[in-house]
Amino acid sequence: MKNSDYQSASEIVIFGALGDLSRRKLLPALYQLDLVGLLNPESRIVAVARQEMDAKELTEFVVENLTSFVKEGLDKETLARFTARLVYQQLDFKEGKAYAKLADILADGHSTRVYYFSTPPAIYGDISDGLKAAKLITDKDRVVMEKPIGHCLESSKVINDQVSRHFNENQIYRIDHYLGKETVLNLLVLRFANSLLTNNWDRNSIDHIQITVAESVGIEGRWGFYDDAGQMRDMVQNHLLQILSLLAMEPPADLSAESIRAEKLKAVKALKPIDRTNVKDKTVRGQYADGFLNGSPVPGYLNEEGANKSSRTETFVAIKAEIDNWRWKGVPFYLRTGKRMPAKHSEIVVHFKEQPHNIFKDSYADLPANKLTIRLQPDEGVELQMMNKIPGIANQMNIHENKLDLSFSETYDNQRVVDAYERLMLEVINGNQSLFVSRDEVEAAWTWADSIIDAWQATNEAPKPYAAGSWGPVASISLIARDDRQWVE
Amino acid sequence: MKNSDYQSASEIVIFGALGDLSRRKLLPALYQLDLVGLLNPESRIVAVARQEMDAKELTEFVVENLTSFVKEGLDKETLARFTARLVYQQLDFKEGKAYAKLADILADGHSTRVYYFSTPPAIYGDISDGLKAAKLITDKDRVVMEKPIGHCLESSKVINDQVSRHFNENQIYRIDHYLGKETVLNLLVLRFANSLLTNNWDRNSIDHIQITVAESVGIEGRWGFYDDAGQMRDMVQNHLLQILSLLAMEPPADLSAESIRAEKLKAVKALKPIDRTNVKDKTVRGQYADGFLNGSPVPGYLNEEGANKSSRTETFVAIKAEIDNWRWKGVPFYLRTGKRMPAKHSEIVVHFKEQPHNIFKDSYADLPANKLTIRLQPDEGVELQMMNKIPGIANQMNIHENKLDLSFSETYDNQRVVDAYERLMLEVINGNQSLFVSRDEVEAAWTWADSIIDAWQATNEAPKPYAAGSWGPVASISLIARDDRQWVE
Repeated sequence: MKNSDYQSASEIVIFGALGDLSRRKLLPALYQLDLVGLLNPESRIVAVARQEMDAKELTEFVVENLTSFVKEGLDKETLARFTARLVYQQLDFKEGKAYAKLADILADGHSTRVYYFSTPPAIYGDISDGLKAAKLITDKDRVVMEKPIGHCLESSKVINDQVSRHFNENQIYRIDHYLGKETVLNLLVLRFANSLLTNNWDRNSIDHIQITVAESVGIEGRWGFYDDAGQMRDMVQNHLLQILSLLAMEPPADLSAESIRAEKLKAVKALKPIDRTNVKDKTVRGQYADGFLNGSPVPGYLNEEGANKSSRTETFVAIKAEIDNWRWKGVPFYLRTGKRMPAKHSEIVVHFKEQPHNIFKDSYADLPANKLTIRLQPDEGVELQMMNKIPGIANQMNIHENKLDLSFSETYDNQRVVDAYERLMLEVINGNQSLFVSRDEVEAAWTWADSIIDAWQATNEAPKPYAAGSWGPVASISLIARDDRQWVE
Repeated sequence: MKNSDYQSASEIVIFGALGDLSRRKLLPALYQLDLVGLLNPESRIVAVARQEMDAKELTEFVVENLTSFVKEGLDKETLARFTARLVYQQLDFKEGKAYAKLADILADGHSTRVYYFSTPPAIYGDISDGLKAAKLITDKDRVVMEKPIGHCLESSKVINDQVSRHFNENQIYRIDHYLGKETVLNLLVLRFANSLLTNNWDRNSIDHIQITVAESVGIEGRWGFYDDAGQMRDMVQNHLLQILSLLAMEPPADLSAESIRAEKLKAVKALKPIDRTNVKDKTVRGQYADGFLNGSPVPGYLNEEGANKSSRTETFVAIKAEIDNWRWKGVPFYLRTGKRMPAKHSEIVVHFKEQPHNIFKDSYADLPANKLTIRLQPDEGVELQMMNKIPGIANQMNIHENKLDLSFSETYDNQRVVDAYERLMLEVINGNQSLFVSRDEVEAAWTWADSIIDAWQATNEAPKPYAAGSWGPVASISLIARDDRQWVE
């Protein structure tokens, strides 16, 4: 994670440059890097897409989207510099010979080429082949792959194999944008820069950990795509397992990609398998029904536009995950994620163990355990819940749970929260793979997820309905209540 | 620490009722208890002093002083109720027969009598004898003793013996008002209600602890009295050792006086003796010289009004205290207290150990250790200093020490901070000795302090001068610097 080579020139080639991700995230992220001087003056941005477009149209397209998606407003000078970097190349991704056109643009300079695959994964292989055939891949070039990488272990292997024919693993950057979030990165700092937490980060001190990633949105017009995946593939296999692996990994010897990725991999591999024998005890599948959100009626999943009325795809998952190693034996990680929940609300709550003995029982019969809350959204920040004496005479030992709050936005006034894509784009440019997912980890995650999906299919049960605007099926409350615990609301 | 018998009636008899402590602290404390309904309707306050005064004069005296010392202003109804409780009795404390006059007032009702000795300790024995002779002591009566209880171990034994002739140890309440401070009480809650701290409260996790009690005032017209004592007897032997014992004691089985006092005693007894062989390494004595405070010149100790120019009394002490037991072996407690320091500023800082391994060395070469700061004054509160990631793109792992702040006055809006004497007076009324110092502890504290004072006398060195308005002699910085540490400023 050194910043030694910020200044090396790169050609950033975005495949699918006119698509949604590019418009909303990639182009604004590159603009922000340019604004703060982190893009080399000679770096160009090569937009590649299927449709015809000339330079002027591209500039208009980019300016329009930056105007929409850069909240802080645009800096004129930066905008001029940024648009001057733009080059457009029409390309039919599946037509191998067409890649020769790219070769004209990507002259064999000394720049590192960053190929950003922002297309459907099914054509990552075609693009890789095309680039290879046009002699556009050298050892120093890099490729960025967006999720989903496959639909299961087998299909992920196919995609990874297609790309790996022409790129080495150390050239491949698999994006999980959760790894670029400030609070997710802060997990490393909290865990490894604070002895109070480092010393308490194991089965001796931690009772359990909750990870909630709740979305209030529904399917947003992509019913068909989503129905093919479901919440397990769309959120758990990637984002939630990424958070889990950062929380659970052994301390890495350093911040190098090699160390971090090795420790994360070990954590995912140590996940106790959930299969047909225990899937009913360990998981809950849900699907939202008609309900209300902020007082307005919203349709159920099966009543969304384009819905197949007989779909059994889950829009909610709760899992009691366990890690079979020395550090975590007996410490459940309760995962929960769903669509159409009451609010966009994602957080990690580390529940430390209760005090073994309560000397304050006269004023506080059940002493709440210490909790560390890491909010991912909204309002990124960290809170530590501890007990303190309440000032006052009435009862000498009247004590109370206080939140020591460290909200990023409050604490660092005027400090813009950096978008995950800015961070990750910079890391690619700097050639640092720490925050990207290794093939081994992707496959270990699929192995674990596939076993659950297989078990669900075998039980052949419909997902449990929950009203849109609720926190999921009642069964998800029972899942944790059986262990005498409850979700933090 | 139960509040079961708030409602029992007590006669509160203050010896030295017209003195400074009574005016500033005891009467206002009793008024505050009355205001919130914690004084039994039938409880009377019997003011005893040497001078003649009638009931009207006493009322005027009390109202005048409450007006001065109750900051929040007086409540009419409470004031009327409070003054109606007042009874005055003139008494020459040394004249045994005079106590018969008190017997007329303190009719042998069923009320518990609380005798508050707010006179010079030299006459505690006379008062006890007088009360006994007048048959005014039963098993349920209590006596409150103000410090200083002696000038050394031997003289403290004399005073304690004099009182103990007529009162049992379970009737004797030795005041150290530091034990009534909110933040000092909160030490118990922090230590024993938070597993994060409980689990880290020993030599494995703590590097060292600093206790600073700095006063900006000088001698305030009591030169002769102070010169006879010095900072060691005036502050260290009592207040600083009380804080130390709460920080260091083993977890008590419950909050009973018996448990708490037993654990505190063990901690004080485990203090490693400082004597002629090691006093130079472990202590620093200072005496303030002329200097400046807030820009104004202030006289040195030897130039104060009434000063004996050849006095060698110390106005500053720094000590490296060590506790010879399993929990604290190798963990120094650095104590520091002085007059005429830059500000009234008292705090405890618990320095946890540095992380054994720093994976953030590229952005933070020396990772600051976690620290818990407990501020006694001004602005009572608790802060936990932890490391967090600084949001921002410039350096991925730019991390920073953040304070998780829990200032009492900010956190509990409109919550008046209860004065230590209110708390302690209530505890006496409730018959709870937890927050009072046992004879054994007083004697253990004197044993430790006497050895240091003896060693200082043997070395026959003058105290080291420090400019008024500074943080003490340079030697006090060296004391801790020799261990490669430094005072928190």
